[in-house]
Amino acid sequence: MRNIALALAYDGTNYHGWQRQPGVVTVEQKVREALQKILDHETKIYAGARTDSGVHAMDQVINFVTEKGIGLQNLSRGLNSLLPPDIRVMSARDADESFHARYSARSKTYVYCILNELSNSPFLIRYVLHWPRTLDVGAMKEAVDCLIGEHDFSAFKKKDEFYKNPAREVKRARVTKRAGMIYIILEATGFMRYMVRIIAGTLILAGQGKINCSEFKEILESRERERAGQTLPPHGLFLKKITY
Amino acid sequence: MRNIALALAYDGTNYHGWQRQPGVVTVEQKVREALQKILDHETKIYAGARTDSGVHAMDQVINFVTEKGIGLQNLSRGLNSLLPPDIRVMSARDADESFHARYSARSKTYVYCILNELSNSPFLIRYVLHWPRTLDVGAMKEAVDCLIGEHDFSAFKKKDEFYKNPAREVKRARVTKRAGMIYIILEATGFMRYMVRIIAGTLILAGQGKINCSEFKEILESRERERAGQTLPPHGLFLKKITY
Repeated sequence: MRNIALALAYDGTNYHGWQRQPGVVTVEQKVREALQKILDHETKIYAGARTDSGVHAMDQVINFVTEKGIGLQNLSRGLNSLLPPDIRVMSARDADESFHARYSARSKTYVYCILNELSNSPFLIRYVLHWPRTLDVGAMKEAVDCLIGEHDFSAFKKKDEFYKNPAREVKRARVTKRAGMIYIILEATGFMRYMVRIIAGTLILAGQGKINCSEFKEILESRERERAGQTLPPHGLFLKKITY
Repeated sequence: MRNIALALAYDGTNYHGWQRQPGVVTVEQKVREALQKILDHETKIYAGARTDSGVHAMDQVINFVTEKGIGLQNLSRGLNSLLPPDIRVMSARDADESFHARYSARSKTYVYCILNELSNSPFLIRYVLHWPRTLDVGAMKEAVDCLIGEHDFSAFKKKDEFYKNPAREVKRARVTKRAGMIYIILEATGFMRYMVRIIAGTLILAGQGKINCSEFKEILESRERERAGQTLPPHGLFLKKITY
């Protein structure tokens, strides 16, 4: 038996997220259909991250088991010829028997992109949140620091979404600005639903001067979703990397 | 009377080029409709470059005449609120009476983008030609050099397109590669139809080793369209800058 791992990149604009759901088009469904045509058998696909509707991935990792002797390059090429152009297989490898795209992951990195210029770019409409008003990036940098370490992130999760353990360890939390673009970069052992988008929405409050750094920290500690900022739209969010 | 100049950026994917044509949607038509709503009168629009169907613009320049006393910022904002998101007004200014977006232009710069990696990027589908096979960038650099200066570019123009004077002066001709992306950059006093796309298609022949540098030069000198390479697709082409 072979355990094959694929790295995928996709533009999430036209998909209802990664995970298969009845009645809507998802990335998993497209990958599953292409894979089934090539392998000639059904197979369960495990994904490193379940990206939400409209969220993009630069480096999603999936794995599946097969007995087929197909070469890795032929597999990639074959899948790419069957997949729509907004979903691409970037690489393929034979993984250890024990490798599991989801459970073997040590951390995931997401980036939220905000174009902080007066005019939006027609080339970035699908990939950034356009925010034409001033944002104090220094204040956002200061606020994001307090996320590092292990915390109960209940204030930053989708309401009514239940988790047995709402604690996550954030390994890296950065805000940087380059050429008019603000990047909010978060690396954590795991993320709850909408977590990055709500953190980004709360950092925007700090950038606007509506809350200061200690108030941002209080929101985190309150564990109350109501106190945090809005959930920013999905199209500014990228799954950047899964670390194994 | 005011002579107002606007800088526009647009994603050409959904448009049949700049210029108004019956029965199809063009960028000019969208701009004209928005402008008419704001000015409350018809006005002739002059454009620095007539980009072809599917070609993008980072910095198209247009001008028009009006007696309205509207502020430039309100004009930009108003237009952007009426225009589709893939056409943006980047800036507006009051120009000299004598300014003409087309006739005042000293040069135009176009860039053709080729993604020279095994896998295409799902985020660049609309903006690059994907070329997965090897290209010798050194050979392309060497070939492009001979374009500099004044030449009859008949070999690199759309067949059956008539020009009284097919001579153009190329001021800059460069091929560069960065992070898997090959950029073909051409600055000239003017361009004939398909000129950049045919030059790019012929440079690809040089990159593949199908022609060498002196054969490239012979094609230019032959003035025969049949000897040049294919017209590359429009989606890799950007109007980068118009210099006045």
